[in-house]
Amino acid sequence: MTEVAVIGASMTQFGERDAWIRGLLAEAGRACLDDAGVNSDEVEHLYVANMASGEFEGRTGIQNALVSDLAATPAYTQRVDQTSASGGAGIYAAWQSVASGAADLTLLVGGEKMTHRTTGESTDVIATLTHPVEYKHGVTLPSFAGLAARLYLDRYNAPRESLAEVAVKNHANGALNPHAQFQREIDVETALDSPMVADPLRLYDFCPVTDGAAALLFCPVDRARAYADRFAVVSGVAGATDTHVVHERADPTTMGAVVDSGEAAFEMAGRDPADVDVAELHDMFTILEFLQLEGLGFAAPGEAWRMATEGRTALDGDLPVNPSGGLKSKGHPLGATGVAQAYELYVQLVGDAGERSVGADVGLACNVGGFGNCVTTTVMEAG
Amino acid sequence: MTEVAVIGASMTQFGERDAWIRGLLAEAGRACLDDAGVNSDEVEHLYVANMASGEFEGRTGIQNALVSDLAATPAYTQRVDQTSASGGAGIYAAWQSVASGAADLTLLVGGEKMTHRTTGESTDVIATLTHPVEYKHGVTLPSFAGLAARLYLDRYNAPRESLAEVAVKNHANGALNPHAQFQREIDVETALDSPMVADPLRLYDFCPVTDGAAALLFCPVDRARAYADRFAVVSGVAGATDTHVVHERADPTTMGAVVDSGEAAFEMAGRDPADVDVAELHDMFTILEFLQLEGLGFAAPGEAWRMATEGRTALDGDLPVNPSGGLKSKGHPLGATGVAQAYELYVQLVGDAGERSVGADVGLACNVGGFGNCVTTTVMEAG
Repeated sequence: MTEVAVIGASMTQFGERDAWIRGLLAEAGRACLDDAGVNSDEVEHLYVANMASGEFEGRTGIQNALVSDLAATPAYTQRVDQTSASGGAGIYAAWQSVASGAADLTLLVGGEKMTHRTTGESTDVIATLTHPVEYKHGVTLPSFAGLAARLYLDRYNAPRESLAEVAVKNHANGALNPHAQFQREIDVETALDSPMVADPLRLYDFCPVTDGAAALLFCPVDRARAYADRFAVVSGVAGATDTHVVHERADPTTMGAVVDSGEAAFEMAGRDPADVDVAELHDMFTILEFLQLEGLGFAAPGEAWRMATEGRTALDGDLPVNPSGGLKSKGHPLGATGVAQAYELYVQLVGDAGERSVGADVGLACNVGGFGNCVTTTVMEAG
Repeated sequence: MTEVAVIGASMTQFGERDAWIRGLLAEAGRACLDDAGVNSDEVEHLYVANMASGEFEGRTGIQNALVSDLAATPAYTQRVDQTSASGGAGIYAAWQSVASGAADLTLLVGGEKMTHRTTGESTDVIATLTHPVEYKHGVTLPSFAGLAARLYLDRYNAPRESLAEVAVKNHANGALNPHAQFQREIDVETALDSPMVADPLRLYDFCPVTDGAAALLFCPVDRARAYADRFAVVSGVAGATDTHVVHERADPTTMGAVVDSGEAAFEMAGRDPADVDVAELHDMFTILEFLQLEGLGFAAPGEAWRMATEGRTALDGDLPVNPSGGLKSKGHPLGATGVAQAYELYVQLVGDAGERSVGADVGLACNVGGFGNCVTTTVMEAG
């Protein structure tokens, strides 16, 4: 099997952007090629991770537009959709394109343009990924998160403040990330006093609606040195599904697809949780950071909340989680998110993370589609 | 590189179906697993080729629903969108998943549910894949086809009847295909007297709006014999793009992405056009059959129309084209089409094509996205 390297990465400013999806993708794609010093006519495959440009903006075929905008014709292209995990699925697709020998230089660009729609409209577009019966009864992803959070707090006697600590940490990290949507610290009181959204979760337990894009450039490891002095290696990547109907799961505080994709990615990489120096987890809701820490084996069931309250997941902790600011602070443009998680790992691994550098050799990213309906996990290491 | 086999295939009845996208995908997926005698819990990757379930039906995450509906959890899944070439892109994605070693058993299901929308609405959804300036001026794919057809007929002094002969042939073939939307023959006069749509193209130069799904099951060639006595091998598969803005192309009667993807697929397979015994071409419009015959090297520029008038592309000709009935007669449920093309090659290659069998050892399928914006070509051979 061909080993696959990441030789360049980029992300745009996240937030409310005065640009449409096509402009965001082109901005990230160009910046990534510039980062690697590669001409666009060398690109053989170009994957676009995006959930819903048609629903949000009335535009389809954005992958074909991007190939033209980057002057990469006749590069092959395809759109990868795995709902809110489209970016992670894009990493898996790009990895497969290089590992299979189909392409030697594959560009992945993930992005979403959302802020021109109201928060309600965006939430509704996302909710179309739920089971039709869930959807008809008005269940949205935030409501699932509220139910899971209440159960978690009750079952494990975890303090409500522990969820607020996740938001406080990720805002502190985001304050160091010039690409983040929110670059300001908050305190626990602000989080706990914010408006109720889905009891017990409040406004600061949720990621915002965001525009943005991110990109990664892949090639075989044995060619990486020709392009870059410093690069990263995708040592493990895998994806898994859980039941489409959330209430059919045996244990609502265990995300089966996190467990399965994590185990497969660790096995492929020949790594275990103790080897990981930095993790980017899918904190669309604060409770998800706990469920992923436990599902991936970083904490025993019911123990992840202690990692937050003890500061172990802070930048100076033993396992920094979401040094980028996470979805909470950096923002969550659906198709961009998984790619932006890997961007953060890349800059951490090659030494470009600036103030938020944690000195990592091994990183992990977990990208959650729906409410754990499909999850991808990626292990990246310094090349 | 791992060689990749197709060990099972299926397609649903195409036409106006009383089922939503989820039901169509599950029907095709189950039938394909039954065809191969494989249990759903053996499936490792499941790719869903679909352009626009969100736009047509307001449902997203249909790939996750399908995994649950087939009882294939925790199989990894992703939706593959390459507009009207989503099926061909799905073949390429499934090939990559097996060839890379990521999965040993990969199911591809392509489908689209369209007939609950008016023809105008469907045409508009498809037109969102064009360049925004083209879209704003009301240009649709049928209008591009009309312009290309007029130029082709004028430039090569080809008779208008040659286009009608494509429709007549594909209707004759469709009459032998129990899955086809239209199972009745037409004559040249009927085609020539049908209502004008985009001068010089008339109603019978266009494929219908269709519901349907199709599926293929892939595994490494060295494992295929364990599953099936007869199987097919994907010996070549490639994709390429052309300019996103159609009028930027140097020659409107040459589809660059057909040429590029065809050359790459032939090179990978170690084949040339003379080796091909049967072809499934993307006859969304009759003129496209000529442009693909020429772009793929089956005919010199300006000569493909003679293949139609001389009967060379008929079932008993030297290169049978669209024995399935093609998009014209079989129907064109966008995400299903590329998969259904490969279904036809599969049944031709393994000897299950019944009355329309042409006795083929090597087959080729060409799936066109947009107006040639992105094209995939697949070469399949008897295993």
